Amino acid sequence: MLTTGAALQAVLAATPEFTVEVVAVSDSTGRILAQSVVAERDQPPFDRVMMDGIAFASTDYESGQREFPIQAMQAAGDPMLSLQAGHCIEIMTGAALPIGADCIVPVERTTATDGAATIEADYEVKARRFVHPRGSDFKVGAALLQAGKRISPMDIAIIESCGLTEVSVSRDPVIRVISTGNELVAAGQSIADHQIRMSNGPAVISLLGSHGYKRCSHDHIEDDVDTLRERLADHLSNSEVLILSGGVSMGKADYVPHVLKDLDVEVIFHKVSQRPGKPMWFGKGPAGQLVFALPGNPVSALVCCRQYVVPALLRAAGVKPAPPEFAVLVSNVSFKPDLTCFQPVKLTSNTSGQVIAVPVKTNTSGDFASLSATDGYVELPREQTHFDAGTTVFLHRWIAA
Amino acid sequence: MLTTGAALQAVLAATPEFTVEVVAVSDSTGRILAQSVVAERDQPPFDRVMMDGIAFASTDYESGQREFPIQAMQAAGDPMLSLQAGHCIEIMTGAALPIGADCIVPVERTTATDGAATIEADYEVKARRFVHPRGSDFKVGAALLQAGKRISPMDIAIIESCGLTEVSVSRDPVIRVISTGNELVAAGQSIADHQIRMSNGPAVISLLGSHGYKRCSHDHIEDDVDTLRERLADHLSNSEVLILSGGVSMGKADYVPHVLKDLDVEVIFHKVSQRPGKPMWFGKGPAGQLVFALPGNPVSALVCCRQYVVPALLRAAGVKPAPPEFAVLVSNVSFKPDLTCFQPVKLTSNTSGQVIAVPVKTNTSGDFASLSATDGYVELPREQTHFDAGTTVFLHRWIAA
Repeated sequence: MLTTGAALQAVLAATPEFTVEVVAVSDSTGRILAQSVVAERDQPPFDRVMMDGIAFASTDYESGQREFPIQAMQAAGDPMLSLQAGHCIEIMTGAALPIGADCIVPVERTTATDGAATIEADYEVKARRFVHPRGSDFKVGAALLQAGKRISPMDIAIIESCGLTEVSVSRDPVIRVISTGNELVAAGQSIADHQIRMSNGPAVISLLGSHGYKRCSHDHIEDDVDTLRERLADHLSNSEVLILSGGVSMGKADYVPHVLKDLDVEVIFHKVSQRPGKPMWFGKGPAGQLVFALPGNPVSALVCCRQYVVPALLRAAGVKPAPPEFAVLVSNVSFKPDLTCFQPVKLTSNTSGQVIAVPVKTNTSGDFASLSATDGYVELPREQTHFDAGTTVFLHRWIAA
Repeated sequence: MLTTGAALQAVLAATPEFTVEVVAVSDSTGRILAQSVVAERDQPPFDRVMMDGIAFASTDYESGQREFPIQAMQAAGDPMLSLQAGHCIEIMTGAALPIGADCIVPVERTTATDGAATIEADYEVKARRFVHPRGSDFKVGAALLQAGKRISPMDIAIIESCGLTEVSVSRDPVIRVISTGNELVAAGQSIADHQIRMSNGPAVISLLGSHGYKRCSHDHIEDDVDTLRERLADHLSNSEVLILSGGVSMGKADYVPHVLKDLDVEVIFHKVSQRPGKPMWFGKGPAGQLVFALPGNPVSALVCCRQYVVPALLRAAGVKPAPPEFAVLVSNVSFKPDLTCFQPVKLTSNTSGQVIAVPVKTNTSGDFASLSATDGYVELPREQTHFDAGTTVFLHRWIAA
């Protein structure tokens, strides 16, 4: 049986690169950049005044002048004025330094009288103080953002400052989430004693949506070979990613692997040495479609989605793998089976700056109610059966920012 | 001048509670729940079989029977059958335990011959093993989710399992983001040397969108008192939150506080003892509208938005304040002014499970390009001017999951 690490490598190796699409910058937050973003102009684009006050020439000041007739006022957004010798210009924060001026004195260190401004006697003037020099943050043409970066609010400021109204991003793939099982009944429909509510599909779509994938739709297919074959063939023909939940254990009604084989989906693995999620199935369709069949239990389905599907989607979008994150177990955990244990945890922060992982017991892998309180899961390696409180372990957050 | 803590308290104290709205569960991820969610049925709703195999009665087994004629097959989603004495029922994972059966033996520990199943001689049968008992996760009527919780993918599973198609959530407030300043030119429009690109407003909208607020629209108003008064009056009449950027320092063109006063917006504070963001202004409109005027520098605007606007919106939605998060400074930081320093940082994780904060120098508070690499900012208290590497400090992530 494949280890969790080998399974993830197999998924990533089978993952193609998605094509790109162009979106409005206002719709691009959270998307993966597929171009570099280059400075349109120097930043600041001019010598930028950082105080409200007066601007004048140091040569006048050095010759002893302290009272300056006010030539004009220049606010942020006003074209640069040319300073006349012996004069000052009233200047506002954010304005461009007037041509010929090189000194700024803040308004509160001056007194204004009769169309002139006088500098306080004990104020020490320094040339170019309170001036944010043109190009000092970056120069025109500087590469500010690279392809593969998830666009953050800060990146929006950068992209807008480069004058772009559209950006090229990795195409949001068409993802079909498919729930199988005759026992499933959607919310809002009447339900019999032996049936259960359909919850995995919506939760998987919600998890993928939280990671920025919005073209996910849901289908429910009953446990019937012909129906399965027909509907899966249709989904394969118009989706880049298929995510099935249920139907991959050993029972007579678990037709999924057989039907996928009939449809020329190459099985890459079936079963991973982990709990929850051991029956996890992964394959590749004839046109390169990624096909994940998640185990039907809710905890297993969400863990496998976060552990295998999300990294594949990020890889396909050109995102570099995130560095590992660690957390400290707050209590002893014992786990006997020779399997990697993915233990759901709630996170807290202590005053040593440590991320503390509080294991949240799930009654069974079908017990999703307790997952509400969790922030992610820790990975307990299969070589060990006992983990002391204080042990540092790998942390996987359900949603990484 | 107000401290950062007093400023936040003043904002929270002025914040009303938003009303609620009903949304489809499929649109509810990330929204703040405004109702409790109660179990529709026991979970599991029946004694749920956890293996593919056979089901039979322990009384038959105890009387020595090892070979059981197969009465029928019962899959997940099939109504419960009644077991006939001396028979077994083929059973699938997820099925309900047949009436009269209390033992499950996995299919791989049986041999099937001629319409009957024989249990392996050395297999030890235990009654109710591989049965996930009805109601063992939770009972009908159990309160599974409370108002004030941000709806996670795991919560979607819970809400769907309770049969709900709609949920009541805190109303997404109408937020108007207003950029002031003649110097600002939107991306896509031609720009002169003395002008700068408008970037704060879009970045603030992106940050609020990342926190789940989608009813944000943008307006750009020039530095003209009459225009400002007219447009702000209009925005006040149809928005719950106004967020201005720029126009709150001391210059002649900084009309914003005066105009807001004319419009009966009560000033609650102006200036906070912090850098960046010292000119921060906050007030309350005549109908209880929250009015934030953020400083015009991009770093200041984003820090003030995260530090004051986001907590107000969460409070208004009924979310309990998150417990503090801590991080460890990776290098010495000196900060001379008697102000709280909000220092942008990039985060890494070390093998002790600590969150390591790497300070990212911003050239000035106008230097937003360096913010791209950051995950949040740390709070360095004003009482101190030097912080050694290894010091634990408060961490504020730009986007908290």
